[in-house]
Amino acid sequence: MRARRPGLFISFEGGDGAGKSSQIGRLADHLRRLGMTVRVTREPGGTDNAEAVRKLLVTGKAESWGPLAESLLVNAARADHLDRVIRPALDRGDVVITDRFADSTTAYQGIAGGLGEATVEALRAIVVGDDEPDLTIILDLPVEVGLSRARGRGDADSRFESKGVAYQERVRQAFLAIARKNPDRCVVVDATPDEASVFDAIEDAVGKMLGARQ
Amino acid sequence: MRARRPGLFISFEGGDGAGKSSQIGRLADHLRRLGMTVRVTREPGGTDNAEAVRKLLVTGKAESWGPLAESLLVNAARADHLDRVIRPALDRGDVVITDRFADSTTAYQGIAGGLGEATVEALRAIVVGDDEPDLTIILDLPVEVGLSRARGRGDADSRFESKGVAYQERVRQAFLAIARKNPDRCVVVDATPDEASVFDAIEDAVGKMLGARQ
Repeated sequence: MRARRPGLFISFEGGDGAGKSSQIGRLADHLRRLGMTVRVTREPGGTDNAEAVRKLLVTGKAESWGPLAESLLVNAARADHLDRVIRPALDRGDVVITDRFADSTTAYQGIAGGLGEATVEALRAIVVGDDEPDLTIILDLPVEVGLSRARGRGDADSRFESKGVAYQERVRQAFLAIARKNPDRCVVVDATPDEASVFDAIEDAVGKMLGARQ
Repeated sequence: MRARRPGLFISFEGGDGAGKSSQIGRLADHLRRLGMTVRVTREPGGTDNAEAVRKLLVTGKAESWGPLAESLLVNAARADHLDRVIRPALDRGDVVITDRFADSTTAYQGIAGGLGEATVEALRAIVVGDDEPDLTIILDLPVEVGLSRARGRGDADSRFESKGVAYQERVRQAFLAIARKNPDRCVVVDATPDEASVFDAIEDAVGKMLGARQ
């Protein structure tokens, strides 16, 4: 995919409650212990401009956005994130780990949200270009388990609650479909076991990718 | 182009100082006298959401936007403008006259701004689709004349002043190139004569288009 930049680009994807934040923290620590420089970031957000777009999407006093406009806004934030954070870090040879990236747009707006994959993929090609992740970890969890975990930690957010279980199931299936379409980049990790066991699987996938790059 | 919606879609394009606002006012009055329902609008803007994006582009405390992110934001505003204002009016059979539309993005960001026509046109196809204007009036004016007119009315804006004459000349040539590529849709009107004479040429172009649609 992306042979030009010397760094390593890893994205974490999956529904809410799958434990992305914890696993990203573990992986960053692990890679730092191996001597790598690691930059952890997230979407939507990652830069001041992107946070301003995020704010426009969630707190605007104006009317809600249609799925196409929403997708264009998210991609504007992503273009800024790529230009200011991701590409410079990869050019320096750093490891970039992002909590969500373009697969979230494909899954949430494109597939589950009904905008359509063709439009989302066309935007993705324009904005991401050759800078797709080297490795995407999809943390997979039955929707009921994710929901009960999110409730347990007191942050079952409005999207999770308001869109309902059927929507979350569409999102889950969307991520699994993305993984099937991109077997070289994506690894699906079962997120039901305890954190340490899930991390073992992630460490294994990252180790294989590092081995393949040498 | 757009045979499905019963209304009529007219855009005005051209550099600053060419007299778009005055001519749009004249044309709206003229068509209303003919019994048509006319909706005058503008870009960037036209809806609350689009104005919020405009604000984000011009007043953000954050860093400036790159040309791709800027183009995505402008297109998000356009998608909203199309969904809430332009398409509903065309579906009702109204006349929509807009002060700037997608050709401005092609000219300013795509050609003069260096983003590249391929990217801008791909975004245009996604966002505008089949809803291109039935007629685009390009008001053409030598850059020096436009600048002196804008100064004369005390609103030589920052873009005009800061980007300089060479940039404005690239914009002018970009609009002329767009007209050459889209002869069925675009009419170039010399904006150097007095307002009434310029309007005669516009009325002529609109009359021909109305005749061709009957």
